[in-house]
Parts: sequence; C-alpha cells; structure tokens
Amino acid sequence: MSGNDTLARLAEVIESRKGGDPGASYVARLFSKGTDAILKKIGEEATETVMAAKDGDRAKIVYEVADLWFHSMVALAAFDLRPADVLAELQRREGLSGLEEFALRKAQQREQDGE
Amino acid sequence: MSGNDTLARLAEVIESRKGGDPGASYVARLFSKGTDAILKKIGEEATETVMAAKDGDRAKIVYEVADLWFHSMVALAAFDLRPADVLAELQRREGLSGLEEFALRKAQQREQDGE
Amino acid sequence: MSGNDTLARLAEVIESRKGGDPGASYVARLFSKGTDAILKKIGEEATETVMAAKDGDRAKIVYEVADLWFHSMVALAAFDLRPADVLAELQRREGLSGLEEFALRKAQQREQDGE
Amino acid sequence: MSGNDTLARLAEVIESRKGGDPGASYVARLFSKGTDAILKKIGEEATETVMAAKDGDRAKIVYEVADLWFHSMVALAAFDLRPADVLAELQRREGLSGLEEFALRKAQQREQDGE
Repeated sequence: MSGNDTLARLAEVIESRKGGDPGASYVARLFSKGTDAILKKIGEEATETVMAAKDGDRAKIVYEVADLWFHSMVALAAFDLRPADVLAELQRREGLSGLEEFALRKAQQREQDGE
Repeated sequence: MSGNDTLARLAEVIESRKGGDPGASYVARLFSKGTDAILKKIGEEATETVMAAKDGDRAKIVYEVADLWFHSMVALAAFDLRPADVLAELQRREGLSGLEEFALRKAQQREQDGE
Repeated sequence: MSGNDTLARLAEVIESRKGGDPGASYVARLFSKGTDAILKKIGEEATETVMAAKDGDRAKIVYEVADLWFHSMVALAAFDLRPADVLAELQRREGLSGLEEFALRKAQQREQDGE
Repeated sequence: MSGNDTLARLAEVIESRKGGDPGASYVARLFSKGTDAILKKIGEEATETVMAAKDGDRAKIVYEVADLWFHSMVALAAFDLRPADVLAELQRREGLSGLEEFALRKAQQREQDGE
C-alpha cells in the first residue's frame, strides 16, 4: 500500500468495532470487557515480544510486535486516540536533532535522579 | 506524509545509529548495550503505557505508546527487521474478514487449551 | 529462620525507610519518587526475570526473582500491606484442594469468556 | 502457621505437580505447556499487580501479588529452584548495610552508564 495508511485503516476497523457484537468480533469483545482487559493484553504481548526476541525467532518477533502494536491501537481507541497521534509524536522526535534531544533529555533526567 | 513513511524514516535513523558513538546518541548507546537492554525497555514502556492509561492521561498515553513503538523499532532493527515487516503482518490481518479470522483463531485456540 | 521470617524482617526494614533520606537509602528514594516509580520497577523486574529464564541462567533467575519479590514488597508497603497478607492468600490456596479449586475457577472463567 | 513455611510447603505442592495430569491440575497443565507459558504468566501477573495498585484496591493488590509470587514459584520449579534460594538472596541483602549496598551498587551502575 503506497499512500495512506495501514495503521489509519486498521484504526478505522478497530473504531468500527466499538459497541459491536462481542460474540462476532475479537475487538468488540475486548472493548466490552473494558480497559483493564485491553491493558492486560499490552503486558502480555510485550512479554511475548521479549520472549520471541530471546529466541531470536525473526518471524515470531514480527508477529508479536504486530500483536503489541495492534493491542496498543485498541488501547488508543479506548481513549479516542489514533495511531496518527503516536506518529505525530514520533515524527516530532524524528531526525538527528530530535533523537539526540530525546536521548539527552532522558539521560540528564536519570542522572539528575541519581538513578 | 503517510504513517508508513514516518515509521520508515524513523527506522532509517535508527538503522544509521548502529555502530555509532554511544556517547553521542541514545540509540547507539542502546545498541552498544546489547539486546537485553533494548528488550528491558519494551517491558518498561509497556508498563508505563498501562500506568498512563490507568491515569486516563491522554497526552501521556500518546507519549508512552510512542516510546513503546520506538523501542519496538530499535528491537526490530537489532534483528535486521523493519516496521514495514510489522505493517505487512498487520495489513494481512486487516479488514473485517481478517480480524474475524484472527479473533476466531485465538478464541478457538484458547478454548482448545481449556484455558 | 523460616521463609516467613525472612520476608517479615525485610518488610520491617522496608517499612522503616518510609520518610527516610532519599540520598541515603534506595528504598527511601523509591518511596519519595512515588507509587509509579515503584510499579515501574515491578514491570522491569518481571521482564528481567523472563529474560533470565530464557537464558536458562539459574543464578540470574534467583537474583531477578529476588528483585521482583523485593520490589513487590516495596509496593505492598506503599499501600500499608505486608508479605504476611500475601502469604495468607497463598496459604488459602495451598494444598491439593486449594490449587485445584484455583485452577478450576480460572479455567472455567476463561472458557466462560470464550477466550 | 508459625514455623516453616508457607512458601516451602507451596513449593512442594508445585513440585509434586511435575509430570502430573494436565487435565487435573492447573500447575501440571502449566508445566506441560512449557516454560514460555509459565513466563508469559509472570508478565501477565506483573501487569495485573500494576493495575490493581493504580486502582488503589488493597484486596486486589494482595491477590495479584500472590498470583505473581505463585507463578514465580512455578518458574523457579521449572528450573529446579526453590523459594528458599530466593529467600537466601533476599536475606543476603537484608538489614541496613545490605540494602544500602544494594542501593549504592545500582545507583552507581546507572550513573556509570549515564542512564
């Protein structure tokens, strides 16, 4: 897909599941279970990503990061947010200067905390 | 610019940090510390995403999901993978039929496991 | 000394750090930073436990589970709870019948959820 | 229970489930599913502990920390380790000097890393 946008289209599908039949859609079921069920999936998928990476299993890494991003998007939708909001934040940090500023800020904060 | 482009461009910046000066770039420092340091950040940022969502703090949710995706991309790069690989996997699942198939598979697997 | 005693004594040390000098004690510093800093450590140490186990490094597993339990105890203390409360809950589940009941409840709940 | 020891007795029960009927015991089922299934539970229960703490729900915190410790013990058992090993490590760190040493080491390491 060239133009816009795998994430935006997926977000639309997710959005359309709000209030849908929990018996007919996985996402509708997640929404109906509530925020904690969605957040629990983020913890789960992060753990599975870490395990796939420890296995060095590249296909599994892709699969688990997809699961992690997918459930992040369900969480975003639960708060009426979109991937575009995250992409805007990432774009803000993008580029050499942005990343260095990000790095510097984090490092300085930690040192200040004496962590 | 499409979302795909933001991620692709950010991935290029991350890729360019491989072997870079750990004192000059946050990402170069992460790479130099090794895979475990990168994976640890995924666990951290997932936890921070969950806490931001529990606070219902929308700006913080965006910020933490950006952190989570960003560090996921550093992990992908550590295994010579790209966001495009994850987007392809998400696209594969996209659309009504794809999501339902995904849902069904997961649900059936769990029921089979008696979980 | 029994395991219960080790945890109880450690809990007393942790408790005694409340309001202490953040510059002189790691636990006092955690308390001064607030609940989110403590909870973030639980996410971190869980991830490190998972990584140590994936490495099959038994000494590291012990070390990381100790870190995980230690920071769990700091979290308990932040809510005026003690390891004794957790041990009482575990004791409640202990024994054949208890564990089976626990297992059954979980499994039945999941099946009911169609997960 | 006064003497020894909720954790030791629970560990014995867990140990006795190795190779047991996965249809009759939750722990036997976890063992039969393999290490990843056990580790995934640690990630899950850590996330649930964090969420319970964010809710400030003290009964739930106790319940989730019990779940977290319980599944940590299953992981220990999978590597032929026991809670006694973790308690010995905690005891080693116990007391004022031990905790300060722990704190200092961590803090110094982080500062050295420039984190």
